[in-house]
Amino acid sequence: MSRIADFGYCFGKRVFSISKNLVMHIERRDFLSTLTMASAATLFSGNPLLASLAPKKEKLGIALVGLGYYSTDLLAPALQLTEKCYLAGIVTGTPEKAQTWKAKYKIPEKNIYNYQNFDKIADNPDIDIVYVVLPPSMHREFVVRAAKAGKHVFCEKPMAPSVADCEAMISACKTNKVKLAIGYRCQHDPNIQAYMKVAKEKKFGKVMMVNSAAGYLDNRTTHWKQNKKLGGGVMGDMGVYALQGARLATGEEPVSVTALASTTRPQIYNQVEETMMFMLDFPSGARAACQTSFGINMNHLQINYEKGWLKMEPHSGYSGNKGSMSDGTIINYPIQNQQAKQMDEDCLAIISGSELIAPGEEGLRDIRVVEAIYKSVETGKNVKI
Amino acid sequence: MSRIADFGYCFGKRVFSISKNLVMHIERRDFLSTLTMASAATLFSGNPLLASLAPKKEKLGIALVGLGYYSTDLLAPALQLTEKCYLAGIVTGTPEKAQTWKAKYKIPEKNIYNYQNFDKIADNPDIDIVYVVLPPSMHREFVVRAAKAGKHVFCEKPMAPSVADCEAMISACKTNKVKLAIGYRCQHDPNIQAYMKVAKEKKFGKVMMVNSAAGYLDNRTTHWKQNKKLGGGVMGDMGVYALQGARLATGEEPVSVTALASTTRPQIYNQVEETMMFMLDFPSGARAACQTSFGINMNHLQINYEKGWLKMEPHSGYSGNKGSMSDGTIINYPIQNQQAKQMDEDCLAIISGSELIAPGEEGLRDIRVVEAIYKSVETGKNVKI
Repeated sequence: MSRIADFGYCFGKRVFSISKNLVMHIERRDFLSTLTMASAATLFSGNPLLASLAPKKEKLGIALVGLGYYSTDLLAPALQLTEKCYLAGIVTGTPEKAQTWKAKYKIPEKNIYNYQNFDKIADNPDIDIVYVVLPPSMHREFVVRAAKAGKHVFCEKPMAPSVADCEAMISACKTNKVKLAIGYRCQHDPNIQAYMKVAKEKKFGKVMMVNSAAGYLDNRTTHWKQNKKLGGGVMGDMGVYALQGARLATGEEPVSVTALASTTRPQIYNQVEETMMFMLDFPSGARAACQTSFGINMNHLQINYEKGWLKMEPHSGYSGNKGSMSDGTIINYPIQNQQAKQMDEDCLAIISGSELIAPGEEGLRDIRVVEAIYKSVETGKNVKI
Repeated sequence: MSRIADFGYCFGKRVFSISKNLVMHIERRDFLSTLTMASAATLFSGNPLLASLAPKKEKLGIALVGLGYYSTDLLAPALQLTEKCYLAGIVTGTPEKAQTWKAKYKIPEKNIYNYQNFDKIADNPDIDIVYVVLPPSMHREFVVRAAKAGKHVFCEKPMAPSVADCEAMISACKTNKVKLAIGYRCQHDPNIQAYMKVAKEKKFGKVMMVNSAAGYLDNRTTHWKQNKKLGGGVMGDMGVYALQGARLATGEEPVSVTALASTTRPQIYNQVEETMMFMLDFPSGARAACQTSFGINMNHLQINYEKGWLKMEPHSGYSGNKGSMSDGTIINYPIQNQQAKQMDEDCLAIISGSELIAPGEEGLRDIRVVEAIYKSVETGKNVKI
């Protein structure tokens, strides 16, 4: 009863979904009759029994926080393709952007927020999920505020600049009984799942060595990626893909790391690293050599097992990830839109109350290693994780 | 005149090729009439003018020192295919092996030596070249003894366990005016030369990142490769291929290295490392991540340039090295026998007095890095080279 009590009561003609900072008012008539009404799924999420009984909301409303390149060029277009969610609102610090988006995507004025009035989103039943697409240094604040507003949260990678931030974000979402998914596209990609499966099923025996590289030539100079205070540096950005290449290829968490940071463009990369190379040890004895850079176009993964190999190129691209194995197996699943697939699957998990593919804990696993990598660079030594 | 004087005098009916420990007697009649006579090429090598005038010896006589697997299964068969040299003699500590080889390859008794009487090879005109195929710890001794015997020297890789050894070997060969070639197959392979050329000609701009791995599962337990005193450890053996992948791909010498040694079979690898991972920095800003292991089957190379990529797999095998480039170019030159090509080309360089493809100095370049790698493992830090 206590779990049910956490999630909602029928009370006369209204249903109150009660959590610490969330009171949603839903007309009973609407509650029973419509599948598109906001918060119905939210109301029942987290409780499998209730979820199975609850009317399913077909499309959850997403509010994008931060309207930079990734929101503009990738998430918003993807949200035109999604089946389980739609672009319901925006949160931006730039009024001009608000007007452009409002017109382009027919977003109601009431679903447009700025960073100051953002917390009022708690009262907006159109918004089920807040997707935080801000610079990493702002993730903690906005994830916590979204959680306190009773909204489920999607958070872009890197999850945050520190383990402490990640833990605070996970804790806030738990306390407020909302889900937290990290915007990891790759784990939703069947091409990536294919090599994760090889490790899990030990198709070629144990994983012995992984080579994983992810980078691109970034010619911007004043983006958050070049700014330390905003959570920049290649390690959290592209580096997480190189790291995931190793983590997902082994199915293990590394126990130690040795890392080297460097730059060939010190005039630009004077606050954060342009390139990071790191070597990981895993509990099974598997090892990985990973490289990431804002100065090098590269995206490849090679896994050498006891009795074979698997290679991917690209392995963490927005599209076209593909690979082959030593037994002749080809990995080449076409995906219409990675971001749409990611958001749809995360929404489905929220609607059905099932496990998220990449919850906050998965983001934390990466940041734990990222933090150790920076410590290794700082000390010039191998660092236990 | 002094150079000519170093190499030989016509003296009545005889030609004396004089260096510190070498006096070769050659009938003048034979000297003028035959092309297969031993030492004629030796006599004129090192002086382009004399070399061009000298009668060319078509086939130089090689004596293999050490009749282990590599001599038995690879070099001796290759010497049945060579056009510029032939198996003229053997040096072994095992009388039974001597008898087997004598019968199999019709080696005259006078061309068979043991480690004690080896120095008498100085008086044997059949032997132009001594090929040292012993455990690395014995390379210095036998290269120096061969040089003192006035013979050109081929030395298997790794050249020696230390830079000091390499320098002593180079010095001894210089002093005795004989050539020293390292038994590097790869530099003779047109598939490897293809990617060396890409770096040299900057076909895709600067080299940015190299991934290079070379290893195999070695299940032997008491070979010199597992024995520290004999110069074992994977780094000098397979590691040199991983290292060369980076050196030849960049066309540069690394300036610093960070390395990690490890083993998953401590019961076997308790004296030397089973696996070595290392990261290299090059003067141009290029970087490399290399891995080598006696526990992992792997042999791949990926080069990421400013404007493209090149990948090889295998990149340092005995045969079948092949690759592709981002512009669609395929690298796939068939080679009948790598070792035969290596020995023929080295002999041709000796006969013609031209530069060796992989002289002692090239071996030294690798060992200088290998020494820094061990220092990095010992100190746990990045080491300048």
